[in-house]
Amino acid sequence: MKRNLHLQTVVLIGSGNVAGHLSKAMAAAGLTVAQVFSPHIEHARVLASEFSALFTDRYSQIIKDADLYLIAVPDGKISSVVVKLPPVAGIVCHTSGVTSMKILEKFDRSGVFYPFQTFTGNSNVDISKVPFCLEASSQEVMDTIRMLARKMSKSVHTMGIEQRKRLHLAGVLVNNFTNYLYAVADDFLEENGIDTSLLLPLILETAAKVQKLPPDDVQTGPARRGDESTIEKHLNMLNDNVELREIYYILSQQILKKYHA
Amino acid sequence: MKRNLHLQTVVLIGSGNVAGHLSKAMAAAGLTVAQVFSPHIEHARVLASEFSALFTDRYSQIIKDADLYLIAVPDGKISSVVVKLPPVAGIVCHTSGVTSMKILEKFDRSGVFYPFQTFTGNSNVDISKVPFCLEASSQEVMDTIRMLARKMSKSVHTMGIEQRKRLHLAGVLVNNFTNYLYAVADDFLEENGIDTSLLLPLILETAAKVQKLPPDDVQTGPARRGDESTIEKHLNMLNDNVELREIYYILSQQILKKYHA
Repeated sequence: MKRNLHLQTVVLIGSGNVAGHLSKAMAAAGLTVAQVFSPHIEHARVLASEFSALFTDRYSQIIKDADLYLIAVPDGKISSVVVKLPPVAGIVCHTSGVTSMKILEKFDRSGVFYPFQTFTGNSNVDISKVPFCLEASSQEVMDTIRMLARKMSKSVHTMGIEQRKRLHLAGVLVNNFTNYLYAVADDFLEENGIDTSLLLPLILETAAKVQKLPPDDVQTGPARRGDESTIEKHLNMLNDNVELREIYYILSQQILKKYHA
Repeated sequence: MKRNLHLQTVVLIGSGNVAGHLSKAMAAAGLTVAQVFSPHIEHARVLASEFSALFTDRYSQIIKDADLYLIAVPDGKISSVVVKLPPVAGIVCHTSGVTSMKILEKFDRSGVFYPFQTFTGNSNVDISKVPFCLEASSQEVMDTIRMLARKMSKSVHTMGIEQRKRLHLAGVLVNNFTNYLYAVADDFLEENGIDTSLLLPLILETAAKVQKLPPDDVQTGPARRGDESTIEKHLNMLNDNVELREIYYILSQQILKKYHA
């Protein structure tokens, strides 16, 4: 039987930020959001109301005839969701960077639909630029979910679990750790009575610069130019601040080693 | 004698990225760039040509009657520039975050005009958002350079050397170290055959998010949620990568300690 590659209806399993952003993007790509499931019925209701969709907190009430079931729940909850989901003929995808597609093997047609971006409630992410990393249990499923992804984004990639896990790790570096550096810098300025908003244009420009040039080519700062005198002065300023001093020391040593070894 | 607070002419000492960006911004604010000095005569000529200004590589040829002399050279070269500069009646400012105003004490009227931003040759920085941190040898000089700074930017601040040095250190964190994390993530993806451009939307969104919300409020990731199992898996993936493993370990430990101690 030749299936139609155009997905028409989707059921969201989950009602958090990923579910919220992807459901809106799928609706914009022409899909009908048919139902939202969440163990938190109120969350399901709120998200469903954006699409006049059904909503439920019971697995037994999940509709069986949707084309796509998108599991957008925290990584650690995927396996328990899978156990409770009824068998369905539609494609079942999870959205996790670190979870194998095998977790979905009880379904005939399954895949991974991993958006490599951070989603928060009130941030307007441009979905058309979000990289979608896809994996599928068959060529037919891949063709189908790729067609959907391409309607949503210009950046669509096929990727197995080993590469996906590594991409996720790189995301921890450029998102979680970078944000932690922002937080540490904020704290340091606050302790010294300096307006933390002074950092914002520099933060934005630092991120903007590498959109055009490789970070290796635009690395600057005391360690990059081998200015050990400034590094020492900075370390001395941080004598009361064990954590920040450790970060400063380790990163400066690594940059020195990279460019001046 | 009551001086006119409106500066009319500026001489640039230096022809690098800071001199280039600030001279254009000063011209846009209505100043006449009268002359560019650089020991590299060709650099002086190129920058001066943008303003049909004079240019020279000889200290003795620096014009004496400008309203402002802006020293925009690497920090380590300011003192030798100061020694060679002829005595002038105009205001002499350096643009360094880490250098005391005292270095300019041979001049009657001096100040600090520190733009807290990273400037590269081809990047279009929006000067109106760049924080300018000012210090001055007298109230009259402060009033004068503040008026100039306010024509250039909405973000103008008065700041002494102790706070300026700390702001500069915070800049190392959110610019140099963040860029190093970008570079390390790039290298890691390259080693694993993954397109490094996949990182770019996440890098930009991470920086965009803290423009509205404090980084503390938007911290996410394995360490933030106390997910030690994922941290351990990531560390195992990095067993061959001593530097990256060290960064991952230290930053994860610090985030764990901050949110889960």
